[in-house]
Amino acid sequence: MTDQQQTHRLTVTAEGDREIVTERVFDAPREKVFQAFVDPELVPHWWGRRADTTTVEKMDVRVGGDWRFVSEGPDGSHAFYGTYRAIDPPEKLEQTFAWEGMPGHVVVERAEFEDLGGGRTKVTTQSLFDTTEERDGMLASGMEGGQSESYERLDALLAGGSED
Amino acid sequence: MTDQQQTHRLTVTAEGDREIVTERVFDAPREKVFQAFVDPELVPHWWGRRADTTTVEKMDVRVGGDWRFVSEGPDGSHAFYGTYRAIDPPEKLEQTFAWEGMPGHVVVERAEFEDLGGGRTKVTTQSLFDTTEERDGMLASGMEGGQSESYERLDALLAGGSED
Repeated sequence: MTDQQQTHRLTVTAEGDREIVTERVFDAPREKVFQAFVDPELVPHWWGRRADTTTVEKMDVRVGGDWRFVSEGPDGSHAFYGTYRAIDPPEKLEQTFAWEGMPGHVVVERAEFEDLGGGRTKVTTQSLFDTTEERDGMLASGMEGGQSESYERLDALLAGGSED
Repeated sequence: MTDQQQTHRLTVTAEGDREIVTERVFDAPREKVFQAFVDPELVPHWWGRRADTTTVEKMDVRVGGDWRFVSEGPDGSHAFYGTYRAIDPPEKLEQTFAWEGMPGHVVVERAEFEDLGGGRTKVTTQSLFDTTEERDGMLASGMEGGQSESYERLDALLAGGSED
């Protein structure tokens, strides 16, 4: 991150019975932010916590295509996977998300990319869980810290550098 | 089906905002009914409508294992797939279900097998959809007729014959 940038705050909100909504502003144009979410070359540079190394095993970015990332870190190796449901560059991305440790527990994730003008973009994610218990379990898992860290890595990538 | 058997009625009920519950009695012991749901040799004999031919492409019956069936019929070829979430013979089976035509739209299906005594078994299924719209779409799709037909084929299989 350059000295000129501030780190924007991530907000994480439980909504309704089964949703988590997050919001975060990035100091980069919308096309560039969207690209970081759909380019398998870029994902390993920002997806996950700093202590993890993420490998993109599959990333078939089309409606019905599958993705699978493996993160190696201090607490072992974790695989995450899902299926793309909607791809509308540079505005919307929708996919399923599951962790291999809870197979068949599928979250629907929607990301919206809003052009704020002045080269800034707001990313809003909505995660829809099957049950309130699964939603609350995710909130209790430390996802907020993990996502904050991941988005700080994305800040660095978007600024032209990389923390890795 | 033998002359001695009656065909039991399938009940299909919308419950809450996102569920479909079905109930059906079979004239067979619980172990035998459960087995028909988890044996890849048996599934093609009863799964789906009479006009369809179902091929089991994958059926890895363990928690976290995947299944994939392809049905060929008058309206083309349709693939269905999912992941087993819980297997508790002969009482409970839980898996995800998706149709390739709506990738990433995942239903959680639970089947419970109740021993009614006298060699009869009640199968109750609960299907949990992401949204009310998806649940109502399934109800409108003719699933009731399809499941009735499939269960009549299962009657025949359990009676020792096969309609195929």
